[in-house]
Amino acid sequence: MLEELKEKVFKANLDLVKHGLVLFTWGNVSGIDRSKGLIVIKPSGVDYDVMKAEDMVVVDLDGKVVEGTLRPSSDTPTHIELYKAFPEVGGIVHTHSTYATAWAQAGKDIPVIGTTHADYFSQDIPCTPDMPEEWVMGEYEKTTGTAIIERFKGIKPLEVPGVLVKNHGPFSWGKTPYDAVYNAVVMEEVARMAQLAFSINPKLTMNKALVTKHYERKHGKNAYYGQK
Amino acid sequence: MLEELKEKVFKANLDLVKHGLVLFTWGNVSGIDRSKGLIVIKPSGVDYDVMKAEDMVVVDLDGKVVEGTLRPSSDTPTHIELYKAFPEVGGIVHTHSTYATAWAQAGKDIPVIGTTHADYFSQDIPCTPDMPEEWVMGEYEKTTGTAIIERFKGIKPLEVPGVLVKNHGPFSWGKTPYDAVYNAVVMEEVARMAQLAFSINPKLTMNKALVTKHYERKHGKNAYYGQK
Amino acid sequence: MLEELKEKVFKANLDLVKHGLVLFTWGNVSGIDRSKGLIVIKPSGVDYDVMKAEDMVVVDLDGKVVEGTLRPSSDTPTHIELYKAFPEVGGIVHTHSTYATAWAQAGKDIPVIGTTHADYFSQDIPCTPDMPEEWVMGEYEKTTGTAIIERFKGIKPLEVPGVLVKNHGPFSWGKTPYDAVYNAVVMEEVARMAQLAFSINPKLTMNKALVTKHYERKHGKNAYYGQK
Amino acid sequence: MLEELKEKVFKANLDLVKHGLVLFTWGNVSGIDRSKGLIVIKPSGVDYDVMKAEDMVVVDLDGKVVEGTLRPSSDTPTHIELYKAFPEVGGIVHTHSTYATAWAQAGKDIPVIGTTHADYFSQDIPCTPDMPEEWVMGEYEKTTGTAIIERFKGIKPLEVPGVLVKNHGPFSWGKTPYDAVYNAVVMEEVARMAQLAFSINPKLTMNKALVTKHYERKHGKNAYYGQK
Repeated sequence: MLEELKEKVFKANLDLVKHGLVLFTWGNVSGIDRSKGLIVIKPSGVDYDVMKAEDMVVVDLDGKVVEGTLRPSSDTPTHIELYKAFPEVGGIVHTHSTYATAWAQAGKDIPVIGTTHADYFSQDIPCTPDMPEEWVMGEYEKTTGTAIIERFKGIKPLEVPGVLVKNHGPFSWGKTPYDAVYNAVVMEEVARMAQLAFSINPKLTMNKALVTKHYERKHGKNAYYGQK
Repeated sequence: MLEELKEKVFKANLDLVKHGLVLFTWGNVSGIDRSKGLIVIKPSGVDYDVMKAEDMVVVDLDGKVVEGTLRPSSDTPTHIELYKAFPEVGGIVHTHSTYATAWAQAGKDIPVIGTTHADYFSQDIPCTPDMPEEWVMGEYEKTTGTAIIERFKGIKPLEVPGVLVKNHGPFSWGKTPYDAVYNAVVMEEVARMAQLAFSINPKLTMNKALVTKHYERKHGKNAYYGQK
Repeated sequence: MLEELKEKVFKANLDLVKHGLVLFTWGNVSGIDRSKGLIVIKPSGVDYDVMKAEDMVVVDLDGKVVEGTLRPSSDTPTHIELYKAFPEVGGIVHTHSTYATAWAQAGKDIPVIGTTHADYFSQDIPCTPDMPEEWVMGEYEKTTGTAIIERFKGIKPLEVPGVLVKNHGPFSWGKTPYDAVYNAVVMEEVARMAQLAFSINPKLTMNKALVTKHYERKHGKNAYYGQK
Repeated sequence: MLEELKEKVFKANLDLVKHGLVLFTWGNVSGIDRSKGLIVIKPSGVDYDVMKAEDMVVVDLDGKVVEGTLRPSSDTPTHIELYKAFPEVGGIVHTHSTYATAWAQAGKDIPVIGTTHADYFSQDIPCTPDMPEEWVMGEYEKTTGTAIIERFKGIKPLEVPGVLVKNHGPFSWGKTPYDAVYNAVVMEEVARMAQLAFSINPKLTMNKALVTKHYERKHGKNAYYGQK
């Protein structure tokens, strides 16, 4: 069942390792089959070097395991909330990658200060506020999704394909699991460059026109980057 | 004698290299067989790439070599003090890993500011105070253990499985040598993220509820992370 | 056509990857055949690990594709402006390498504060000012070239073989594509050292005599470094 | 002639690459045969991956090439001055390793703030002052040696086996070329830890007793680290 999607999600999970975004089991990727309403996600706490494509777990949008002998990632309820709220999203990634997590711990949006950022994110990468204590002590993984969705009011998810959860770490997404991983890599590099740039010049600035130009050059209706 | 434990301690020492926590011979792992009261530890100053499992040294809790032709790690008395004071501990690691050592040199506890930290350490990672000069000039490696044990009054060692020795570097531990190495890797990454996060926002904050939630989710009696 | 130059440009593009200067497709190298007035450049958005020498695109100095089935790098108009303005240049590189990009985002020249810098760049590495909005929204890639050329008034391009484009990233050049890549690697390392040095001592200084000595020792008419 | 020393110097040069201390050709190692009064040193500007043991150049203490078809490192006169002034030294290394060079550019001694430092250097690692302009414009590589020697008045070279040359980079030494490389690796790591530690706590302190203890434990007459 969903063998092709399982293969893609499996491969996307390994790409996290290849790009140096995960230590041990600290990351997960999922993908959704919108026509069937089913999500494929990494099992919880399984080592990447023994994991196989068939270990991927299939869950429905209520979080019920539909196929698979392993428990799904403990972050599954966050993924589900995001898939429900963001219908254009086909893949989701969560990691504790070093620099993005440092910004999340700092509790700050990553300001758009360079074209590397603007090539993929049309504005600042938002950080969620502190969650109410009852959210944390209640259905925590589900309300993590709620916190992200509230923070994205007025923001189009595919124009800002990632978020920092305060004191926790980054989530990113895209049309496919592959794109979600790609955006996770971009976020980590953008977070790193921003930490360095502010250490060099805390008062740096960027003109909005340049942000718009770069975002549109890759993602606007007259995009002219790449082959097509 | 203790061949299985030697193999585990040997492998754990090599894992330090694999995770980039040691330069040259600057690290050591030990494990204890509680039923026999014997410790297996890395020999002093032996290169990791020529070291073999049978080079591991067996010492008793008085520090006497029971088996092995090489001298045990010069830090052996520290390991012994910790094994005596922390009966739940089965493996101990000492390294000079870069970021944890930087915090030790800074003489500061690593504050819990993220879920990566809270997933493994239930509170700040403590740093010992300056040792009295007579401790340093006396049985230094033993009193290093004493300094750690005093700093841990009121703290459960398995809930905070590591410490910074001021101006020196990290020690970590766990139920097994493997767990001790795992916690050494976590400490190094947590130290790195904290250095970065404070450089981004010196006034950052984290709610205690989130710390508790994450620690309990992995280690509490209702833990639900991973497979089991 | 231009098979030898294609091979060199192709190899120079792969060298960017080898030196860790590019993520994904974020970099490009070109070379020029001055006698024919033709430029060979990397195709836009093609993965380095599937790219072949014959994928290199040949364009003339008006930007018209003369040979090749793929679209040339979207930065081609910048390369063309630089080749027109700097007749001594034979190869050009653009990357988003981490530290050089951080300085570009900071909007600051990289001050010459060490002999590593002075061995290859005779003075500070300039950063362009903000571009006028109409430049950004007009023929952006061409005016990026204009901004660089204006910034280099009074500077000899081969004595300062690189520039930071504000909020964007580094461009570098040399007599050949190989030299341009070499200078890109130097810029990245010099940018990294400068970020660290200023974090250690914001008031550091360097005597001009030492700058001159080092630059002349490698590039002056009495140069005595290396074999020749 | 001196085949064994050539092999050692050659291998020591490759070890610089292995330890990540050099980019391109930016480093050199030499060794001395005190009985013959001859130095073996890396040739100038030769790539490490094509270099062979027989390419090493033999020079006498006046800098005259005694054997070899290539030119010796342009830093040869610095090595010669140090061998003359420090009779206990058998090998010398110069690199532009990133963190040590950053401290040199900052123009600051690396303060002893940790046991990693004290295990190999008995006190702060000194940085030379600005050289007089006539030294820079005169026999520069020779006076670089003079500046180091003057800075070491009252310091025993084997107790502080390295120095920072202001705005330039580190030199290190030891009883053998291997030891000199070892100390270069230590300096780089110590420089890195110190940059980080001061960024965490600019007011950090270290007790002198701990410095002495660690230095003596490895290098004092009652040293007890390692096998022997």
